[in-house]
Amino acid sequence: MSTHHFAPTVFYNTMGAHEPACRIRSGDTVVTSTIDARGDDKHLRAVGVRPNPMTGPFHVEEAEPGDTLAVRFDRLYPNRDSGWTANVLNHQVLEAELFASMAPRQIVGWDIDLAGGTTRLTDCPPELGGFRLPLAPFLGCFGTAPARREHIATASSAEHGGNMDYRRFTAGSTAYLPVFEPGALFFLGDGHAVQGDGEISGTGVETSFDVTFTVRVIKGRSIGWPRGEDDTWLFAIGNAKPLEMAVKHATSEMVRWLRDDYGLGDVAIGALLGQCVEYEVGNIYNPMYTMVCKLRKSMLAMIAGSEPDARREV
Amino acid sequence: MSTHHFAPTVFYNTMGAHEPACRIRSGDTVVTSTIDARGDDKHLRAVGVRPNPMTGPFHVEEAEPGDTLAVRFDRLYPNRDSGWTANVLNHQVLEAELFASMAPRQIVGWDIDLAGGTTRLTDCPPELGGFRLPLAPFLGCFGTAPARREHIATASSAEHGGNMDYRRFTAGSTAYLPVFEPGALFFLGDGHAVQGDGEISGTGVETSFDVTFTVRVIKGRSIGWPRGEDDTWLFAIGNAKPLEMAVKHATSEMVRWLRDDYGLGDVAIGALLGQCVEYEVGNIYNPMYTMVCKLRKSMLAMIAGSEPDARREV
Amino acid sequence: MSTHHFAPTVFYNTMGAHEPACRIRSGDTVVTSTIDARGDDKHLRAVGVRPNPMTGPFHVEEAEPGDTLAVRFDRLYPNRDSGWTANVLNHQVLEAELFASMAPRQIVGWDIDLAGGTTRLTDCPPELGGFRLPLAPFLGCFGTAPARREHIATASSAEHGGNMDYRRFTAGSTAYLPVFEPGALFFLGDGHAVQGDGEISGTGVETSFDVTFTVRVIKGRSIGWPRGEDDTWLFAIGNAKPLEMAVKHATSEMVRWLRDDYGLGDVAIGALLGQCVEYEVGNIYNPMYTMVCKLRKSMLAMIAGSEPDARREV
Amino acid sequence: MSTHHFAPTVFYNTMGAHEPACRIRSGDTVVTSTIDARGDDKHLRAVGVRPNPMTGPFHVEEAEPGDTLAVRFDRLYPNRDSGWTANVLNHQVLEAELFASMAPRQIVGWDIDLAGGTTRLTDCPPELGGFRLPLAPFLGCFGTAPARREHIATASSAEHGGNMDYRRFTAGSTAYLPVFEPGALFFLGDGHAVQGDGEISGTGVETSFDVTFTVRVIKGRSIGWPRGEDDTWLFAIGNAKPLEMAVKHATSEMVRWLRDDYGLGDVAIGALLGQCVEYEVGNIYNPMYTMVCKLRKSMLAMIAGSEPDARREV
Repeated sequence: MSTHHFAPTVFYNTMGAHEPACRIRSGDTVVTSTIDARGDDKHLRAVGVRPNPMTGPFHVEEAEPGDTLAVRFDRLYPNRDSGWTANVLNHQVLEAELFASMAPRQIVGWDIDLAGGTTRLTDCPPELGGFRLPLAPFLGCFGTAPARREHIATASSAEHGGNMDYRRFTAGSTAYLPVFEPGALFFLGDGHAVQGDGEISGTGVETSFDVTFTVRVIKGRSIGWPRGEDDTWLFAIGNAKPLEMAVKHATSEMVRWLRDDYGLGDVAIGALLGQCVEYEVGNIYNPMYTMVCKLRKSMLAMIAGSEPDARREV
Repeated sequence: MSTHHFAPTVFYNTMGAHEPACRIRSGDTVVTSTIDARGDDKHLRAVGVRPNPMTGPFHVEEAEPGDTLAVRFDRLYPNRDSGWTANVLNHQVLEAELFASMAPRQIVGWDIDLAGGTTRLTDCPPELGGFRLPLAPFLGCFGTAPARREHIATASSAEHGGNMDYRRFTAGSTAYLPVFEPGALFFLGDGHAVQGDGEISGTGVETSFDVTFTVRVIKGRSIGWPRGEDDTWLFAIGNAKPLEMAVKHATSEMVRWLRDDYGLGDVAIGALLGQCVEYEVGNIYNPMYTMVCKLRKSMLAMIAGSEPDARREV
Repeated sequence: MSTHHFAPTVFYNTMGAHEPACRIRSGDTVVTSTIDARGDDKHLRAVGVRPNPMTGPFHVEEAEPGDTLAVRFDRLYPNRDSGWTANVLNHQVLEAELFASMAPRQIVGWDIDLAGGTTRLTDCPPELGGFRLPLAPFLGCFGTAPARREHIATASSAEHGGNMDYRRFTAGSTAYLPVFEPGALFFLGDGHAVQGDGEISGTGVETSFDVTFTVRVIKGRSIGWPRGEDDTWLFAIGNAKPLEMAVKHATSEMVRWLRDDYGLGDVAIGALLGQCVEYEVGNIYNPMYTMVCKLRKSMLAMIAGSEPDARREV
Repeated sequence: MSTHHFAPTVFYNTMGAHEPACRIRSGDTVVTSTIDARGDDKHLRAVGVRPNPMTGPFHVEEAEPGDTLAVRFDRLYPNRDSGWTANVLNHQVLEAELFASMAPRQIVGWDIDLAGGTTRLTDCPPELGGFRLPLAPFLGCFGTAPARREHIATASSAEHGGNMDYRRFTAGSTAYLPVFEPGALFFLGDGHAVQGDGEISGTGVETSFDVTFTVRVIKGRSIGWPRGEDDTWLFAIGNAKPLEMAVKHATSEMVRWLRDDYGLGDVAIGALLGQCVEYEVGNIYNPMYTMVCKLRKSMLAMIAGSEPDARREV
């Protein structure tokens, strides 16, 4: 249960079986930092390059292929007072003719008030008046080394996680990731001070972060796709194209979760998800889109005997 | 500002330029009822047939092509103590192999506690234990006569509305619909006592409803796709396949709304929607899928001068 | 076995249960004409309106719901010396950025040499030099009244046929269409002097046609989607979005054809289609896309005992 | 202009910047062999593993990022008398309910008559009678090391080529591939004795091959997606999901080819592709689908001054 202070110096643009940057053990906590999506650190020094340069990988001693890696984000927060976004919405979410009428794409700056916990466009269009957003910081991109010995660009995502841009991975949430390589090889980066659903301007408010996280290896449990939870929700994630395929992976992963850990049969799952499920769009911009299937923990608490079985407590 | 009490006897399975069932005026309120998706009324008498037999159409005197029809749902509530759903999830949201492993599809009953405001599977699988859901009643299917003289089955949806199965059209919400035919010809039905996102078992808890609604014609304002609002949200709807196309229509309609009624430019819209938008899945089951693009009204209130201009108050 | 000479005066823009324009019997031949996609006849008089005004419907005495209507196109040929197309490719087939760089869309004229059997842009860009295309005339849009009492715009397509824009429906081919309404109600129009796959400029060379066709009712045989054949090919058609769904309908319809009429089992079908199937894109422009699954008749002739059973000869 | 005889011993399951297996120069010819998709060689020895173990990579001395690698397939032919396929069609091309009714998937053997040039299921279902297919051998999977330092599994495909399963890459055809890494690093394998469009049983007739190919580096010309040609066709390839996106990449690449090498403007391209384009489905089974946009060379020959400019002759 050590705490590691790790200051990154090398940043990868693919997730794969790269040389471990830091070796840790199940139960350990890491205090580290991430640079922004184009490679700028807290001092605005360009120390990495596009896309989404990653801190890591962290080699977790006990993790072997077929296990699951749980990562609790203990603290996630911007560590500088500026960020940036694209200025306009993407073609992925606009009718073709409307997109053709949009202003040309460029990068615009945002001021981040770290103490006050808000952010605002530096050159704010006058019609936005008092526009100022509460920070809701999360990591857009993290994951393990992928299956099949692939090295996957940190622009994209797959079963191993990656560039999901899902805004519910805030401090206090836990991510569950499949382990495909010895040591799992955990990568993280791409902090967003705030972002709407779908990352529909192609960016959140991109900035550098200080991050503290704690890992735990769940031995002998394999999952198909990333999962997560926070105080309110259980969620399962699909990363694919088209959006329907991402829905299918996310929903199927939730079904497997409810079958395996909660002992629910098809009809119970049909009733529970059919009448209570919620979906969120992680991203509809990256090479693979991200859909999230989520269920309130209170729904499970309502069910007698719904405690997940002991296996999950490993 | 009359109130009409209308007891339906004929039920249409397409929306189109059918004979008006009831003639009303802008500002009028209608007290009526709807039958369930397979045609059963409050006494469980089969008075209509699949799919989604509609009450209406209501001919609104002032409505002409190019106008918008606003429909406020004043009251929506089941009027009988039973409903039904399919028992398992659909192939549209499951990986092909997982779907192939599912129990065969059949219909199962639900008990509705009208006074207590909850519902529960009649033959509840034991592992669901104390499962009981609060009612969250809404209309799955409503709309106007479509464009291009089409008669569109009430299983489907398009610019005119239709079978959107979006659970935020509860009492207190207002729907905005384009007018393509003289009198608009408003249809409604397919009440769901409760439903998760996406209607992923192909059903909400299907039952008959008592409904009170009030119409208002907005002259000379045309919209591209259905819009809506409640106390918290503005939302715009796209009905299309694939899901990406539904996202494009919903987002583009929201962009037009913000441009036209709030005077926002591309960069303001890029910042506002890019960092604050939320999406919801209406349905991912029907012939056309429904995606909803929504924005908190509090975001607009934050912006100085963000009051929609007077035109919208017509 | 009568021959009817029918001169159309009313043109429908939806396929549906409209008043029959002409009553015929199974085995009869019809000599008629069609106007172009914007409503211009052989004299360039505007006698109909967009989209795709249809000649018909033809009521076929013996046809009842559940039957199949076979339509043999005996002769199909332009009846005037001009046509038109859009000038540029559509956004449906171009990357968003490339589409945004394209010249604005407008209509351009084509000269049709009826005797010589060729066509060419009237104002041909100089770099096209000796460009001149052989005519390959076919009907872009035809079908029966749809299922579920829908009236479907002739811009679109579904199980009943419609705006498929498939270039293999030339003279000599036979189309098979499902019958949903008494009399089938056959519509036809939207002649193209020539067209590439997919109708990717949104148009073939649009013009008016003289058409001769012969109908035959196949009693008690129902099909799911349009089928066709010519001297070389059997083909089955899916009309849907996204393109994958159109592939699924087309392939599934071919599988049903091979199972039911040729007695092939799953492994035989797997080998035959898996190693010999060909696909063509009917359209990737209209509200529903069209994919065609085709198989060479010579492949079936190679198989001993592959004659379709007697039922098909009805 | 040397000829290299290369006997592979190491087989990669990803394309990436792996250690070169053989160093050659622009203009050189290579005589080599490939093993089948599960790793069996001409003697049915298991010398590689799934998926699609690759021969190579070949390092081409002159090739640098931004160049194009031309690979002419001089000879491609199976080198053993057996192959295998899956027995049934995939869910990717079937309606969900029809797929659920299919026999379980398993592998079945095929006999290959190398001298006679035909192949046939070893245990042929009786209803297939005299079924026997002419060989039409091609390589399902080949490409260069991908962009962005990715290592992409040989199950998949992207801008660099990969598992496209396009049946027109037979002997006599030339493939053009983008160069992203020094030396290009060309990989090849996954021979199919014959295959229908789309690889809809998930397999062609999978077997090991003898292959002779000749490389040529086109300096300073970069392409976006794989291109190819044979005596009859020019074709451009898109590898993506959904199928529409593959269509967009393929068509856009063809547009760029016609713009850059043939000097055609938007209207010329609109007429030429709009009325003459053909599409083929490479695969609709792999992680990325492959669509091909093709144009007859005779169409270009018809156009005065349509000779590609000298740059292409490098």
